[in-house]
Amino acid sequence: MPWSPFRKLTPYADAAKKRGVIVHHLNIGQPDIETPPSVMAAVQQADIRVLEYSPSGGHDSYRQKLAGYYQRLGLDVTAEDVLITAGGSEAILFALLSCLNPGDEVIIPEPFYGAYPSFAVAAGVRIVPVTSHIGQDYALPPVAEMERAITPRTKAILICNPNNPTGYVYSRAELEQVRDLCLRHDLFLLSDEAYREFSYNAPAISALELAGLDQHVVLIDTISKRYSACGARLGALVTKNKALQEVALKFAQMRVSPPALAQLLGEAATALPASYFDGTKAEYLSRRDLLVARLRAIPGVVCPVPSGAFYVMAQLPVDDTAVFAQWLLEEFRHEGQTLMISPAAGFYATPGLGRQEARLAYVRNAEVLSKAMTCLERALAEYPGRQVAIQPAAAAAHAGS
Amino acid sequence: MPWSPFRKLTPYADAAKKRGVIVHHLNIGQPDIETPPSVMAAVQQADIRVLEYSPSGGHDSYRQKLAGYYQRLGLDVTAEDVLITAGGSEAILFALLSCLNPGDEVIIPEPFYGAYPSFAVAAGVRIVPVTSHIGQDYALPPVAEMERAITPRTKAILICNPNNPTGYVYSRAELEQVRDLCLRHDLFLLSDEAYREFSYNAPAISALELAGLDQHVVLIDTISKRYSACGARLGALVTKNKALQEVALKFAQMRVSPPALAQLLGEAATALPASYFDGTKAEYLSRRDLLVARLRAIPGVVCPVPSGAFYVMAQLPVDDTAVFAQWLLEEFRHEGQTLMISPAAGFYATPGLGRQEARLAYVRNAEVLSKAMTCLERALAEYPGRQVAIQPAAAAAHAGS
Repeated sequence: MPWSPFRKLTPYADAAKKRGVIVHHLNIGQPDIETPPSVMAAVQQADIRVLEYSPSGGHDSYRQKLAGYYQRLGLDVTAEDVLITAGGSEAILFALLSCLNPGDEVIIPEPFYGAYPSFAVAAGVRIVPVTSHIGQDYALPPVAEMERAITPRTKAILICNPNNPTGYVYSRAELEQVRDLCLRHDLFLLSDEAYREFSYNAPAISALELAGLDQHVVLIDTISKRYSACGARLGALVTKNKALQEVALKFAQMRVSPPALAQLLGEAATALPASYFDGTKAEYLSRRDLLVARLRAIPGVVCPVPSGAFYVMAQLPVDDTAVFAQWLLEEFRHEGQTLMISPAAGFYATPGLGRQEARLAYVRNAEVLSKAMTCLERALAEYPGRQVAIQPAAAAAHAGS
Repeated sequence: MPWSPFRKLTPYADAAKKRGVIVHHLNIGQPDIETPPSVMAAVQQADIRVLEYSPSGGHDSYRQKLAGYYQRLGLDVTAEDVLITAGGSEAILFALLSCLNPGDEVIIPEPFYGAYPSFAVAAGVRIVPVTSHIGQDYALPPVAEMERAITPRTKAILICNPNNPTGYVYSRAELEQVRDLCLRHDLFLLSDEAYREFSYNAPAISALELAGLDQHVVLIDTISKRYSACGARLGALVTKNKALQEVALKFAQMRVSPPALAQLLGEAATALPASYFDGTKAEYLSRRDLLVARLRAIPGVVCPVPSGAFYVMAQLPVDDTAVFAQWLLEEFRHEGQTLMISPAAGFYATPGLGRQEARLAYVRNAEVLSKAMTCLERALAEYPGRQVAIQPAAAAAHAGS
């Protein structure tokens, strides 16, 4: 079982704080956005005599209202298609356990969410990475490459859209290529859409919209980011495939019930007007613009403009972002401050990749982001391991050859 | 992946209710006891702006207070030994994943909690049952039998104490035999103590009390039953084994965080006075006495007096309790009522065992229990598949031979 790849930096951050240094956390996915008060109130004003188990698949009332939320997005989802889970995390685990047998393989474009390898270990399955490249803004890897990765043990493709860590939002053309691939080889498409609401150019396309694929798609969802309610631990596994829904329900029965208090919260959240997202989206968009502008102004930094989620992946002119990230915490300070970043190697399964990349989250407000960018600017000027960035296009061509 | 063994009765119960029959649910583990109002208030009055992730192992404040709860029970537990989980369920899964590799074996006395087989499938491990017998009140199977079940792949013994489904509470002598066995063969002892507070003769002995075994013991705990807060989904994995705690923490990091609202509840619950349990224990005890007295008054019913948890296992004079349970829902009614029971075959891994046994929960009040027992009395007089019970002592002698 692997350690979380980011855990080893935590002691350095703690030590820095003990020395009085202010650490700006651009490494985490915990937004500072307020959880909607009406949603918190639904939990806090509920009349609860006995805090009972809910049904294993979640309360019917919540499943129905959540189906309504999907329907308002134009997705053909009914309550019967929805299984409520303890966070998107449990939906990932149940999806892997339900779609794959031990020893089977799942293809995932890398860089990918840092916890996927742990879920794969827990489910006894193998991740086969196919690399996307900063030189192509982390677009979907060529489908021909994904097809070459298919073996008799391949049972599924897992995508995250909008993507964590890259912020890339897959186009309809890309998704239809993935669909055709899944149909050609009879693979499940596990689609992690935790960041659905945060797509800045156009609405993100759900895998459930892909014509002819409804028996192959397993949607993995969570309210964590959507309503800034990460601590609720409330997610969902959505599929039109009845046989698969039955298997997933068996895993749900195993743990009896998803969290009951969180379901009250989730149910209330479905009543929020669509306009609720306008405010949060505008806030994230302005933060993204600030972060990208500041990053691009730093000599040697390469950074695509992410069109979704709340992360930026940047290539930094350093020898190794893991070494640099530690140096930021141990050695560097500017006006008593420093920043914490996520070295990208932890998002790649292929050894050696991502050494000049890092993920920066814009879940903190503009003031914090500005200060963090000033720190980064100075740090890159001072850092002894400074090294010209490999040309992304060249890197892509090399890796893709 | 197996279906929950009790799920197939649910449609019959639903159909009975649709026909206007009142179904007394003695099949479930959901108490009607009120969740302590002060504990609910802690969640409902908390000032929460952003419902954030907690640390993966749980909030430090809760871990410390939970350690205090164990210390008040005389157990040597510090906050560092405690990992907070999403229910006891997640603690079971993490314990199996952390202590066993895929293909390894865990020995469990049967009958056992009906969800263990699903957890074993999810973790890729094999359950090896060793049978306890109604003729011996479901005492621990002879340790010699457990020892014979050990193979090179055996990594752990899992006990549930007080036991679900039997209500048996292991004696110190039994637990010390298990301890010696674990030490002799270097096995982990996973101890599911969900019903710790409900031990009616003397306090239940925790596996953590067993001298010399602290590097082998993994305690699985939950607040579900203790505070009648099943829907909170809050449990804990407790071990003094640092290496094991580290592995379990990796699984905890995988799913980022246990439920945050439930932790507020759990933290408040640690402040309840010890006397809180006097009330609930007295209530359960009087229900047990009622249920056992009524059961023993029915001709042909054999029923040990369980000394813990809130279940009774009884042997009924029927051909098959699974058939009988279905007949109760489909064919029988008395004054517009019937009852639902848990056929015991679902608690055994050995095929054919438990066919005359059923579990009855006393989580409903005396009035409901009385009505249910009147129904059972009449039903057993009417049931066409009536059959003399196999003598428990003979059955035990036979199975043990």
